[in-house]
Amino acid sequence: MGQHSKRRSDEPTRLRNLVSTIFHGGPRSVVRASSLSEASLREGVSAQDDCAVFAFSGDQELVVGSDYVRGPKFRLYEYGLLSNYDIGYYLAVANISDVAAMGARPLGLLSVVRYPPSMDDDAFRQILEGIRDGCHASGTVVVGGDIGGAERIILSATALGVCRPGGALLRRGAKPGDALCVTGATGVAGAAMEYLRSSRRSAPIDSIYRSDLLNAWRRPTSRVREGICLGDSGYVSSCQDTSDGLKATIESIADASDVGFTVDASRLEIPKSVVSVCEFLGLDVFSTIMGDSVDFQLVFTVPETHIPGLKKKFAAEGLTFSKIGAATDHRAVVLRLADGDSVPLPGEAWR
Amino acid sequence: MGQHSKRRSDEPTRLRNLVSTIFHGGPRSVVRASSLSEASLREGVSAQDDCAVFAFSGDQELVVGSDYVRGPKFRLYEYGLLSNYDIGYYLAVANISDVAAMGARPLGLLSVVRYPPSMDDDAFRQILEGIRDGCHASGTVVVGGDIGGAERIILSATALGVCRPGGALLRRGAKPGDALCVTGATGVAGAAMEYLRSSRRSAPIDSIYRSDLLNAWRRPTSRVREGICLGDSGYVSSCQDTSDGLKATIESIADASDVGFTVDASRLEIPKSVVSVCEFLGLDVFSTIMGDSVDFQLVFTVPETHIPGLKKKFAAEGLTFSKIGAATDHRAVVLRLADGDSVPLPGEAWR
Repeated sequence: MGQHSKRRSDEPTRLRNLVSTIFHGGPRSVVRASSLSEASLREGVSAQDDCAVFAFSGDQELVVGSDYVRGPKFRLYEYGLLSNYDIGYYLAVANISDVAAMGARPLGLLSVVRYPPSMDDDAFRQILEGIRDGCHASGTVVVGGDIGGAERIILSATALGVCRPGGALLRRGAKPGDALCVTGATGVAGAAMEYLRSSRRSAPIDSIYRSDLLNAWRRPTSRVREGICLGDSGYVSSCQDTSDGLKATIESIADASDVGFTVDASRLEIPKSVVSVCEFLGLDVFSTIMGDSVDFQLVFTVPETHIPGLKKKFAAEGLTFSKIGAATDHRAVVLRLADGDSVPLPGEAWR
Repeated sequence: MGQHSKRRSDEPTRLRNLVSTIFHGGPRSVVRASSLSEASLREGVSAQDDCAVFAFSGDQELVVGSDYVRGPKFRLYEYGLLSNYDIGYYLAVANISDVAAMGARPLGLLSVVRYPPSMDDDAFRQILEGIRDGCHASGTVVVGGDIGGAERIILSATALGVCRPGGALLRRGAKPGDALCVTGATGVAGAAMEYLRSSRRSAPIDSIYRSDLLNAWRRPTSRVREGICLGDSGYVSSCQDTSDGLKATIESIADASDVGFTVDASRLEIPKSVVSVCEFLGLDVFSTIMGDSVDFQLVFTVPETHIPGLKKKFAAEGLTFSKIGAATDHRAVVLRLADGDSVPLPGEAWR
């Protein structure tokens, strides 16, 4: 211990080297509550997925994940651009997104809301109303949690969901040749953050920012219906939400599945709002789309042959997705540009 | 809204007036993951129990609760009396205690650990090791959570457990005439806090403080085996842990069950360490035993006729409990003193 005592590894290193080592193993993996019932841990911390998965007797599987959200992401709250209601809404959606990415149906949310002594009842009520409405918009409810004082606002939550036995979608499972797909555009939340953080303002961008840029933070969407389609299909080999950005998500699936990916630049959706911000601030569009933008889309892999069937399932629900690339047996994760060149995925990786 | 805009209600008032009102109701209470399976919310936020309860097809019930612990309780950490390992251990036990109080078998813990940039790997590792060992001591494991940076240490967790269908022990359910029981002594954690916070020191008390007083904080015990005995017995009409202190716990069961309680002072266990601290600091012993002391004992009610059977069950596991009073149909909650007088329960109620 002594020789490492002042070492400060970054977060990914801590996750990889410390968390799974320390938490691996333990006294029990199967719990019997009655002679008929049995609950057993299928995927725990070592899997590094966003949720733990329990197999339950009775033809179902429980997924459960926790996310703390009050951190650097809430710079926009400190700027006065997000309200108390907005951060409550965000807390709910961010947590339910992890359940959606496992292909599960949300069962409920436990929210931890700690507030400073200065917070009045209306502000507190608005946070709770935001959490409630973020749950309702995702088809679920608040079922419990913890509420009380602290030195400053602390928002954390745990989301629960169920799926059919063996149905939980994990990060590992992608196979070379699988199509790489995403449920919608990325980069808007990241572009919004860049624009709102910069001291420069522009009337044309201001005109879209309420409706598009800021809304990526104020009313994010958890892709619950998409996740259920993916989980129910039985076709999907891996899935993760883009809460760490598109690049980090693809690289994480690559690591967990031991494959590479080629992303086709021409297939990436490029939102107008992202282009406007990038032109105005002199940012690279692909870096913004692939970087640390928290859009809560689902990235997944599926064998090429099942794409038509899955498209049909999605269309029946009024939903869409796009193929953006393919898994390769070569471990590299690259972006193929229009000129045929391949480059490492651009954008800032997750911290 | 305008007329209340600067009101700052205390925590119990917020829980009562805001939380259950805002979170009540919602889009769905039954979730089907397959044609055979069904999960439905049995007890949610409005019940004000420490855990939510879900009925699952397959002969079992899931209980799940979240607790944030890094707050004013960790004054002892700031004094240097609790280590990083200790606060991790405490986080695990405090959360698992909520599952134990529902009569459930622990299934796993999700821990949220956020740390300031200054925390080195060894300190971080010690927190995780404490969480792991607190889980192992309670017969369960860490299954997931969230880890990352923050402005200061934030420790929160969610514990999951299972019990037989309809087996979750709630706060409501005590009937007039039921015996009021507790699994062990209370007041030690509170006495420890009073002593360690005071600037005065005493050699005789110092000699017990490492082994008894400080240990109430360093190595608390979640009463998992006791909870399972209570849950499996089918006799118990209500249960709660003493994480808010004995007085608050009894009053909360009284409120939820719409009964009163008479606590018999002569039946309360009075630990030597509590007496020593109270004599030294001039504190009232009963106030210390009943006040805001976080000892994680279980308080429960059981029909008088089932006490012998329950005692036998406990003895078979090497466990004990004591009867300390009885539920009454008169709503008052009182302490009956040796002289026959009855007084309101002494001690500071939970904040």
